[in-house]
Amino acid sequence: MNSKWRKLIDDMKAGSVPALARLVSRVENREPGWMEAMRAIFPDTGRARLVGITGSPGAGKSTLTNRIARHLVERGQKVGIIAVDPSSPFSGGAILGDRLRMMDVSDLEGVFVRSMATRGALGGLNQSARDVAKILDAFGKDFVLIETVGVGQDEVEVVKTADIVLVVLVPGQGDAIQAIKAGIMEIADIFVVNKADRDGADEVVRDIEAMLDLDTELGAVPPPIFKTVATKGTGVEALVEETLKMLEAPPRRAEWQEERIRVELIGLVEKELIDMIKKSWTKDGKLDRAVRQVQTQEKDPYSIVQEVLAPLAPLLGRD
Amino acid sequence: MNSKWRKLIDDMKAGSVPALARLVSRVENREPGWMEAMRAIFPDTGRARLVGITGSPGAGKSTLTNRIARHLVERGQKVGIIAVDPSSPFSGGAILGDRLRMMDVSDLEGVFVRSMATRGALGGLNQSARDVAKILDAFGKDFVLIETVGVGQDEVEVVKTADIVLVVLVPGQGDAIQAIKAGIMEIADIFVVNKADRDGADEVVRDIEAMLDLDTELGAVPPPIFKTVATKGTGVEALVEETLKMLEAPPRRAEWQEERIRVELIGLVEKELIDMIKKSWTKDGKLDRAVRQVQTQEKDPYSIVQEVLAPLAPLLGRD
Repeated sequence: MNSKWRKLIDDMKAGSVPALARLVSRVENREPGWMEAMRAIFPDTGRARLVGITGSPGAGKSTLTNRIARHLVERGQKVGIIAVDPSSPFSGGAILGDRLRMMDVSDLEGVFVRSMATRGALGGLNQSARDVAKILDAFGKDFVLIETVGVGQDEVEVVKTADIVLVVLVPGQGDAIQAIKAGIMEIADIFVVNKADRDGADEVVRDIEAMLDLDTELGAVPPPIFKTVATKGTGVEALVEETLKMLEAPPRRAEWQEERIRVELIGLVEKELIDMIKKSWTKDGKLDRAVRQVQTQEKDPYSIVQEVLAPLAPLLGRD
Repeated sequence: MNSKWRKLIDDMKAGSVPALARLVSRVENREPGWMEAMRAIFPDTGRARLVGITGSPGAGKSTLTNRIARHLVERGQKVGIIAVDPSSPFSGGAILGDRLRMMDVSDLEGVFVRSMATRGALGGLNQSARDVAKILDAFGKDFVLIETVGVGQDEVEVVKTADIVLVVLVPGQGDAIQAIKAGIMEIADIFVVNKADRDGADEVVRDIEAMLDLDTELGAVPPPIFKTVATKGTGVEALVEETLKMLEAPPRRAEWQEERIRVELIGLVEKELIDMIKKSWTKDGKLDRAVRQVQTQEKDPYSIVQEVLAPLAPLLGRD
């Protein structure tokens, strides 16, 4: 590892927030040497608790995440937030009147917020989020809150490997049904019915209970359901209490750990391979030439891809 | 190509729906020889129009897609539907009372529906949808409707390469704002305000107009806005008229064609590489061993990935 990375890691470990931010950016951008950097910090990881917060767009996840962060900070915990959500004010940027929703956590001691753009990224989002979570872990965060919209395979994938997952639903959107169908119902450790001062909050609770009755195996403890009004802070303390209690014996840590490593290994290779192929294709206009060949119908895309992959096949053991 | 693929393709081209369904499944499953099959049908593609239909969960996209399909069939068109949406009754399955929403298109002459599971799939969803669209194209469909939830990078990516994109919003969910933030506003050729019999429909129209005023370059024609009540069929005919009119000179065909080929080439390689690496890792317990090495802290994931990728690096021109 070169001395630039070394210094960045040393500064980060010494508690420098600018160094932390730069390290995160460089790893996200896959600057040469990033893997060695991750190897170097790996022994310092494994302590932080990962809390996934997911739900449909407009469920108030960011406000809730913010409130949870505040409660944790009040308890003396160091918190990092990763927002992987195009609709999050953390990551999506404030638009028009929505600027009001943009909540400020910059006054909170020890909270580091990292937003991840989802737009335009072609794959690898999960892996980037996992890398950033590891860096925040090595930096000494006690908690990393990962906020992600619970629709879309990538987004669900992100929280799947958290220690605990909060699924946030709201009244009046048929949210419980949507949640089941999006596959996030089954990854919930705790349900949160946010905007609970609105009509229909009790119906959402009943919907969830009805689903859980169907789903829960005999003897299994169903996930608890909390009602919150995140904008006012109502109900958040009880939610945080329960989250902390659950984290003492994280429901999925044992069960998921193997799967988490598996997903991470495949994710790392996947992202690396994609980056490699993109670089090698872009380098000397190869991709542009291929695009023209398809445009002019000189070749079909499948032939081109077979040519590109042919030299790799024996290495990867494909017949 | 072996005789099994050959026969399947011949039968499909002769109009056999079971052969079409089997071909789609085999290509989706990447059965050996699928690429040769795609090469064989490639010359028969390029005629069908791709209509992307996207929007937030619960916006009524499936019902609208169904209605649009019916209108096209009445005009003598052959229609295929691809549902890439965990919340679609086409793909997500009907749950509890939601069974009511499950609309039947099986009585419609010439409509072929293919749903794509998003759950559990690790990447490659876009590419699968594109492959299926190509097969439907080669089969002789005039229109392929791709329904996808407009949240999540993969899902947005799918419609991005359609000839025309309908963005479906509904009253009362802050949908216009969510749409902008999810990046689907800018890919809309037509806006549809569905459930327009609900309170707030005019506000959504005004919100969209306000955004368009900000966005539209001088002289550019802003996308039209249609109000529909898909459950009753209200407004769908006018929407279909406009869609057909626009497709005569597809707004994005010229502009996007190059980008579409580029995305497709990278997508194909990406999915193939992932499949190759997964197969090669799973084959003789290599991945399991790697997982154990990380679990027992014998190795860190980054070292393992570097070892796996090392032989590929020179081929891909990475330093």
